[in-house]
Amino acid sequence: MDFATLVGLVGALLLIASAVILGVSPDVFINSSSLLIVVGGTMFVVLAKFSIPQFLGAFKAALRAFKFKLPETQDSIEELVEIASIARKEGPLGLEGRDVSSPFLASGIQMLVDGQNDETIKQLLDKERLMTLDYNRSGSKVFTAMADVAPAMGMIGTLIGLVQMLSNMEDPKSIGPAMAVALLTTLYGAMIATMIASPIADKLSLRMTEEARMQMLYTDALVAIQQGTNPRVIEQMLSSYLPPNQRDKAPEAEPSGG
Amino acid sequence: MDFATLVGLVGALLLIASAVILGVSPDVFINSSSLLIVVGGTMFVVLAKFSIPQFLGAFKAALRAFKFKLPETQDSIEELVEIASIARKEGPLGLEGRDVSSPFLASGIQMLVDGQNDETIKQLLDKERLMTLDYNRSGSKVFTAMADVAPAMGMIGTLIGLVQMLSNMEDPKSIGPAMAVALLTTLYGAMIATMIASPIADKLSLRMTEEARMQMLYTDALVAIQQGTNPRVIEQMLSSYLPPNQRDKAPEAEPSGG
Amino acid sequence: MDFATLVGLVGALLLIASAVILGVSPDVFINSSSLLIVVGGTMFVVLAKFSIPQFLGAFKAALRAFKFKLPETQDSIEELVEIASIARKEGPLGLEGRDVSSPFLASGIQMLVDGQNDETIKQLLDKERLMTLDYNRSGSKVFTAMADVAPAMGMIGTLIGLVQMLSNMEDPKSIGPAMAVALLTTLYGAMIATMIASPIADKLSLRMTEEARMQMLYTDALVAIQQGTNPRVIEQMLSSYLPPNQRDKAPEAEPSGG
Amino acid sequence: MDFATLVGLVGALLLIASAVILGVSPDVFINSSSLLIVVGGTMFVVLAKFSIPQFLGAFKAALRAFKFKLPETQDSIEELVEIASIARKEGPLGLEGRDVSSPFLASGIQMLVDGQNDETIKQLLDKERLMTLDYNRSGSKVFTAMADVAPAMGMIGTLIGLVQMLSNMEDPKSIGPAMAVALLTTLYGAMIATMIASPIADKLSLRMTEEARMQMLYTDALVAIQQGTNPRVIEQMLSSYLPPNQRDKAPEAEPSGG
Amino acid sequence: MDFATLVGLVGALLLIASAVILGVSPDVFINSSSLLIVVGGTMFVVLAKFSIPQFLGAFKAALRAFKFKLPETQDSIEELVEIASIARKEGPLGLEGRDVSSPFLASGIQMLVDGQNDETIKQLLDKERLMTLDYNRSGSKVFTAMADVAPAMGMIGTLIGLVQMLSNMEDPKSIGPAMAVALLTTLYGAMIATMIASPIADKLSLRMTEEARMQMLYTDALVAIQQGTNPRVIEQMLSSYLPPNQRDKAPEAEPSGG
Repeated sequence: MDFATLVGLVGALLLIASAVILGVSPDVFINSSSLLIVVGGTMFVVLAKFSIPQFLGAFKAALRAFKFKLPETQDSIEELVEIASIARKEGPLGLEGRDVSSPFLASGIQMLVDGQNDETIKQLLDKERLMTLDYNRSGSKVFTAMADVAPAMGMIGTLIGLVQMLSNMEDPKSIGPAMAVALLTTLYGAMIATMIASPIADKLSLRMTEEARMQMLYTDALVAIQQGTNPRVIEQMLSSYLPPNQRDKAPEAEPSGG
Repeated sequence: MDFATLVGLVGALLLIASAVILGVSPDVFINSSSLLIVVGGTMFVVLAKFSIPQFLGAFKAALRAFKFKLPETQDSIEELVEIASIARKEGPLGLEGRDVSSPFLASGIQMLVDGQNDETIKQLLDKERLMTLDYNRSGSKVFTAMADVAPAMGMIGTLIGLVQMLSNMEDPKSIGPAMAVALLTTLYGAMIATMIASPIADKLSLRMTEEARMQMLYTDALVAIQQGTNPRVIEQMLSSYLPPNQRDKAPEAEPSGG
Repeated sequence: MDFATLVGLVGALLLIASAVILGVSPDVFINSSSLLIVVGGTMFVVLAKFSIPQFLGAFKAALRAFKFKLPETQDSIEELVEIASIARKEGPLGLEGRDVSSPFLASGIQMLVDGQNDETIKQLLDKERLMTLDYNRSGSKVFTAMADVAPAMGMIGTLIGLVQMLSNMEDPKSIGPAMAVALLTTLYGAMIATMIASPIADKLSLRMTEEARMQMLYTDALVAIQQGTNPRVIEQMLSSYLPPNQRDKAPEAEPSGG
Repeated sequence: MDFATLVGLVGALLLIASAVILGVSPDVFINSSSLLIVVGGTMFVVLAKFSIPQFLGAFKAALRAFKFKLPETQDSIEELVEIASIARKEGPLGLEGRDVSSPFLASGIQMLVDGQNDETIKQLLDKERLMTLDYNRSGSKVFTAMADVAPAMGMIGTLIGLVQMLSNMEDPKSIGPAMAVALLTTLYGAMIATMIASPIADKLSLRMTEEARMQMLYTDALVAIQQGTNPRVIEQMLSSYLPPNQRDKAPEAEPSGG
Repeated sequence: MDFATLVGLVGALLLIASAVILGVSPDVFINSSSLLIVVGGTMFVVLAKFSIPQFLGAFKAALRAFKFKLPETQDSIEELVEIASIARKEGPLGLEGRDVSSPFLASGIQMLVDGQNDETIKQLLDKERLMTLDYNRSGSKVFTAMADVAPAMGMIGTLIGLVQMLSNMEDPKSIGPAMAVALLTTLYGAMIATMIASPIADKLSLRMTEEARMQMLYTDALVAIQQGTNPRVIEQMLSSYLPPNQRDKAPEAEPSGG
């Protein structure tokens, strides 16, 4: 997952950079005060829309999304089927202290071990999933706000440049370069929004959905385990979480499953 | 279905191409670096928003939508009425090994054969329908993202061209052609969004809805079959899935149905 | 209903036409290749987004909306109260073969005659209403798509015209007229979207809502008739479907109703 | 309520008018054919989107919203507590013929007098509230449509003016004034949308919400009265409808209420 | 929270101000009649969309959001666990007269003391939460309306300036400065919307959500206390309201809690 985002972001930026460098006057594209208006202004305005922990949390969430991968659905199903087999043979207590791939799953197993009933487990895990989703969503929202604010700051910068240019038109030769500089903030704003903030916001939002689906899968499995469902039935039930093209492969991957 | 999309896409492109070729200076409309910025940039940015399997999956989904047609509602109803008749005469086991037109229907019939109760069948098939919808939706989302990103990349390209032009205006004669080239990326972006990405996204989304409706029809029928409903009642019940203008024809198509 | 749409569409077009004809150079506003790009291009792109039956069905739906009027709510309530009275006196069988104002109502009465219970009637009629709404909605969607695509095709045409003009600026005198022609496609696109496609889409959507409300009224009444509710109570119950200003008149219209 | 809208609409228009009159050449801002295109065109297009009763009804609704004020929540609560006291002491029949502040409340009291049970009362009043909301909403929708159509008609007018100007550029001196006139329709469209249609639409929509909340309050109270709830409990229950800052004042206003 | 908004708003404005002051002709950016059109016009139009109490209430809400901080989730949980312990030991009456951190919590505790059952408590507190949300939301809506109206008023001002300039082009030297002034209103409108109104609207909306979440937490806790749940179980249950990264810290903060 992270790979696609990295390739996409770097590839798009390199493409634009090469178009600028190979074109005429590449040096005109770097202007520190234009950059300050767009980048600094966007950061300040977005900060004003959130709290400091949310603002910083968004960058942490983006970093974490790049570093850590979610487990594959197929792997999680196999892990859960194994847990179900143990719970069936040794009872829920056999799961005590088991090392699992996700803290959400661990807290669910703890509930099994504590002997909670199925309704309580479902209720508590659903609440935890919704709360996690809620907090995680703010990461995506910060980058979405950036994608909204950056073009507006770009336009504000361009309007300032145009007003300055229009009120000082004695030297006709200066009009072209002045207008070029004025347009730079619009360019910066469009690039930040389209090529950086919006892809990261979409990727974070996608990841949150996938994390929530994974937690729904865990919840379904844990409730079924608590109810003493046969591990094979659990496996069949969870297979609906697999993308359609992986469902056919599932029996091949575990031919001796029955 | 595929036919309309093919005619529409090719027709619109030919119309624009002929307007360009019959006009003045058709050669000015092809510019490889402009094309690279818009097409390459859009692909990279969209890739960054998704994972590699989703990105490639979208193109596969588009191809599949062009190649395979969904069965007609009327044909599916007839197939299901036949299945209901067999299940009524020979019991669910009489359906074992039957060759049906859709894998979704096949898995539902397997549940009948396995003797699952109606609630379980409904629950499992509903879950499968929602999961299929969920995974399929990403195909449409990739093309929707393309339709959003392409005009933005076009504008970025035009801004770069304008900045280059404005900072080099010594030769007034070069201004027109330079501006023409700058506008090309906006034109490319608008064409990709309006005439390619957006129609494919809408078509995929439409097909997903129709596939989901078909799966809902299968579910309704299978639950009714499990409950031992009379095939004639099932036929009447399913006829609400037909478009209004086909409902009148339905009895004509099966005059001896009663 | 149809009257308002007809007056509105024709009135707006005549207004614009007279502004063009009374102004300078009315002949410059007609350009066949611009018209072909916008009208033809829009048709092709919209066709690509739907299937051929849906595309043609939208025009049929628009025609039907112009030709046929929905019955007035007050008239439908009176018809239903009469039906309720007959069902009360003669039993549901007294309704057999009765000529009613809508096929939806007819199929509901057939259920009464067939002796279905109230839950089945409600369920089947609700399903039919939702399915009708679903199919009818595509008519509105086709015109909404047209309203979206036409301005985009207009912009594409204008960009093509601008690129052609900018790359051939030897004769300064030709710039004005060339730019005028380039702007024509934007004008055509805006006119098609604002003055034709969008009003028809909104009108179809409004009519679908009204048809669905009428079907909800029929369903409420038929369920109440099946339950043997007193016709006077049914009348009172249905009066909530009348617009507030007609509710006061209702008792006047049927002074001997009690 | 009406006061704020009146002050706002008149104030904004006076501000713009004074900016025009105090500026250079105020007479250039009045152009009858531009006004006809924008105002007439907008009216015709909006008419086409609705039916004649809906179109005229919107203006009536706007007038009514200016003329009649909704009762204050605090006053309604006091009225309902009084009604509850009477119903408690004398039974529902004691309410017969009572003069109340709203027709909705009157019809609810009639249900009490008729001896309907609480479920029927709730169901009928809820249905009436939703239907009223539904019909009232179209008033807001007509003005929203105006706010959408007016800028589009303004742009169409400007495009017509630009095409006329561009195809007749022999006299350079006429270009400026011709362009000024062309821009007038865009100005008219923006002013109608921003300063007239959109505020009225928002105000009508706000009023509808407040009317619906008031009807919900009446429903809650009437159901509680039918159930024989203590008037003091009803008062406490209804106080959640008061804005937070008025809740504290409530006990002060009725110190001897307990 | 307030800190982030203050830093963000002031920082962005200082950034733009320094870009203007350090640039050429900073005095051209102040124009009283442009400022009057945009600020005054926006205020009048927004006033027209709401009532006077709502309009003024929005500014009060913004001020309150800057002045008062919501209690930390962790602190509220600790407070509630303490309340639960008292209620367990001394019964609900032990809570009478207790000083708590929020009026919402106080009214809930009063219900406990009054001996209301759990369903009534949940129903009344849910109703109060929704009503509070409803009234509070209008604060955010007023600033959102400002963010919508300000750019439109800016465009209206610019169009007025352009029409004036275009109809008086005798002196070519005056065109530049006149156009600069015309653009000022667009700049003001964009700045008010992007850098002031929209951040405040978003911040108020965020705070409302957080307040509603806090009230949901109080409701959950109070219902559990009424049901006599063990304080330790309540603490565990409420911990799902903590952001994920604080959940791990929770046991550290209360090591002797078990």
